[in-house]
Amino acid sequence: MARVVVDVMLKPEILDPQGQAVANALPRLGVSDVSSVRIGRRIEIEFTGEADLDRVREIADKLLANPVIEDFTIHEVADEPVPAGDPS
Amino acid sequence: MARVVVDVMLKPEILDPQGQAVANALPRLGVSDVSSVRIGRRIEIEFTGEADLDRVREIADKLLANPVIEDFTIHEVADEPVPAGDPS
Repeated sequence: MARVVVDVMLKPEILDPQGQAVANALPRLGVSDVSSVRIGRRIEIEFTGEADLDRVREIADKLLANPVIEDFTIHEVADEPVPAGDPS
Repeated sequence: MARVVVDVMLKPEILDPQGQAVANALPRLGVSDVSSVRIGRRIEIEFTGEADLDRVREIADKLLANPVIEDFTIHEVADEPVPAGDPS
């Protein structure tokens, strides 16, 4: 069983109002040293057998990302993700 | 300048209809060996100076994730992300 992660982010030149809203809220939490926040999607795909990265690339391009405004990166992860809320 | 990434995913026991929709669409692309798709958020936070991971943990907990239904992981990344569409 293989797990592949596709990270989809808006291209740098595309405005990200959602990230901007988070950035604007940070001073209220006492955080003033953040210069930028960008919000994208993380998609975890689990294969029953071996992961086929070329196939994943095709899936990302056709189904997961909008190549006009978004970039994506693909990487295989070895095992289960760290449970969560864990800042490591 | 430091960049910290917060990955927010639904807890494993929470249904993910968006991921399910993608999983259901995959056979139409000829992909039949995917057992599960989960869709979450990837947030990139750029600091003007050093990154404060404890502070990021607080931001994630209060602003970025819903701890009732979502888990998050935090990791610092060294440099600029790989441009995109690049399956490496």
